[in-house]
Amino acid sequence: LIERMRAYGETIFAEMTRLAVETDSVNLGQGFPDTDGPRSLLEGATRNITAGVNQYPPGPGRPELRRAVSRYRSRHQGLDFDPDSEVYVTVGATAGIAASLLALVERGDEVVVFEPMYDSYAAMISLAGGVRRPVALRRDPASGRLTFDPAELRAAVTPRTRLIMVNTPHNPTGTVFTAAELEEIARVCRDHDLLAVTDEVYEFLTFDERRHVSLATLPGMRERTLSVSSAGKTFAVTAWKTGWVTGPEPLVRAVRTVNQFLTFSANGALQLAVADALDSEWEWIQQQRRSLQDKRDRLAAGLAEAGFDVNVCEGTYFLMADIRPLGYLDGEDVARALPREAGVAAVPAKVFYDHQEEGRHLLRFAFCKKDEVLDEAVRRLTAWH
Amino acid sequence: LIERMRAYGETIFAEMTRLAVETDSVNLGQGFPDTDGPRSLLEGATRNITAGVNQYPPGPGRPELRRAVSRYRSRHQGLDFDPDSEVYVTVGATAGIAASLLALVERGDEVVVFEPMYDSYAAMISLAGGVRRPVALRRDPASGRLTFDPAELRAAVTPRTRLIMVNTPHNPTGTVFTAAELEEIARVCRDHDLLAVTDEVYEFLTFDERRHVSLATLPGMRERTLSVSSAGKTFAVTAWKTGWVTGPEPLVRAVRTVNQFLTFSANGALQLAVADALDSEWEWIQQQRRSLQDKRDRLAAGLAEAGFDVNVCEGTYFLMADIRPLGYLDGEDVARALPREAGVAAVPAKVFYDHQEEGRHLLRFAFCKKDEVLDEAVRRLTAWH
Ligand SMILES: CSCCC(=O)C(=O)O
Ligand SMILES: CSCCC(=O)C(=O)O
Repeated sequence: LIERMRAYGETIFAEMTRLAVETDSVNLGQGFPDTDGPRSLLEGATRNITAGVNQYPPGPGRPELRRAVSRYRSRHQGLDFDPDSEVYVTVGATAGIAASLLALVERGDEVVVFEPMYDSYAAMISLAGGVRRPVALRRDPASGRLTFDPAELRAAVTPRTRLIMVNTPHNPTGTVFTAAELEEIARVCRDHDLLAVTDEVYEFLTFDERRHVSLATLPGMRERTLSVSSAGKTFAVTAWKTGWVTGPEPLVRAVRTVNQFLTFSANGALQLAVADALDSEWEWIQQQRRSLQDKRDRLAAGLAEAGFDVNVCEGTYFLMADIRPLGYLDGEDVARALPREAGVAAVPAKVFYDHQEEGRHLLRFAFCKKDEVLDEAVRRLTAWH
Repeated sequence: LIERMRAYGETIFAEMTRLAVETDSVNLGQGFPDTDGPRSLLEGATRNITAGVNQYPPGPGRPELRRAVSRYRSRHQGLDFDPDSEVYVTVGATAGIAASLLALVERGDEVVVFEPMYDSYAAMISLAGGVRRPVALRRDPASGRLTFDPAELRAAVTPRTRLIMVNTPHNPTGTVFTAAELEEIARVCRDHDLLAVTDEVYEFLTFDERRHVSLATLPGMRERTLSVSSAGKTFAVTAWKTGWVTGPEPLVRAVRTVNQFLTFSANGALQLAVADALDSEWEWIQQQRRSLQDKRDRLAAGLAEAGFDVNVCEGTYFLMADIRPLGYLDGEDVARALPREAGVAAVPAKVFYDHQEEGRHLLRFAFCKKDEVLDEAVRRLTAWH
């Protein structure tokens, strides 16, 4: 293994899911729903496979999906992207993020990231030969929200900074950046002529009337932002690996150059099914959002009763819970013991930080599960403690 | 776009398929069949999607597929790989090759490649920051085969050489390396302590009683070889993007480290279907091999009649044809003119060479098409000339 990747082991998600399976635990670790997305989506896929959509789609993606992505970004965010040159289909958001970072980050370039950060960002910045500059999300005493300090963000920028990686709704904190927060980021990008790559896979999973704001909608940002999203979270089909990158033509062309040699293309039959769902399953998405909000409240209440200090998230399907009220300090130790001791798997937030002290006492619980599964997890955690 | 990727534009396959579509040409450029793989395979996929196999499979792949890969490598090649630690599922062979090269090639490392070479090898070596050392496949006057000169191979190795990239059956020449040729490569690897990455996606598409030999079967090679293959070519489902890497545990672990952040996983429903087909569709594969051999002969005869000097391939579904008897010199010019002028698309071999002169006069034609499609292409080429 090349030297700059030696710090990376197996992903925490893979490790925790394995532990969960071995111990027959309730798996609230890795983020995947236990109920599949809309029936029309699954039927679309099987119809396309049966009808013979089984050979290479165009590398940039099926035109039907590129047009559907362009339409929804216009409808929901008021942004217009040319489906032919400004939308690019990737093998899930993971590949979109990888291709974006590998295409844009030159050796020695610095990348500002918010920590805790989804694990692939750090790994792909390292693979590119870049250097990350983390800015912490912390509980703001005034609002109680997990957010960043604009002064800390500005201080993270140096003459070597190339881009800012932005994830909203944010995994694992569940923070949905406000327009004002995004404007702080946008200002830094404009002032220092930085690019932005955004991970917006939870864009439709926001709660309590909050709405996702795409960084590209802010003044001066459309021309310097690559927005990454995917079908996996929106439509509860995490194995489908159908994602997309939208942005200005020169940046999308850069992504294409790298992506075509990383994966060449994503599966065509699934692309067509997702294209239809983006047009026709808006009601399902609303229903999913409401259902997840209820599940959030259900798990948050249960974890609080079990003794955790719970951060009620604004979006995504993850809750962060502080273990200190239970008398523990290190979430990594607890997360590794929990499957065997309690029969529940969670993810230690610590692994998402460079400054691991910041997240030492936090566990992440996924609530995209059937109510009875959430209840069983709470029962087990209560019994454990 | 980062500097070291600026030499790369759109892949020739995407470009030529686009040209073919625009001009309503017979597309013998990009390599994809016009008839899908076995019915049981397609039915397996739709059954799995309907039954709810739509959430993340394990990152390394579904155990069923890893076991099926392990079984066929044992059955056909006498090599035993532990499905848990020595087989890794990737998003098609392209991702397997990318992850292997990005995991193993350190900046400044040299990689020996045989040219003409499939385009992703050069791109991924560049992305890794490596340097390629091409060794040409040329017509051997004695045998008439397109092969390499062992002395040239040995001369390409320097103290900076890290690995040899081997593609057999070879795209685009159609050469199936003999055991003796592979032993020349193996000897160089052993003598200089080099790794090997092999692209074996056409492993089952060999003709005239030739059998594919996997480099890993040669003495001392199992421990230093990552073998990449996929379902796309074997089962005529190029859009399925279901591939695998097999090799010794430390090398497979290196691939995992990179791959989990490039794509995380491949689609699970398709993996299960491929697993079944690897066990149950052996007869279909034999039938496909015979059918492709007939198609090879059909197209070779037609192209010869149309005036090309045809190299009758030993494997893959590609034929190389020399345009000089027709009075042309530059295959790239011809390939770009052909769709409009003749209504046929082919791929210029030149783009697969660093020493472009070597392949200037060669076109690559895919013959994985219905007989009537091949006949129509020949008719058009005959009329054109
Ligand atoms: C790609 S596996 C991780 C899934 C996920 O998004 C998460 O659990 O955060
Ligand atoms: C991945 S597109 C190219 C398909 C192919 O293997 C070829 O045409 O050589």
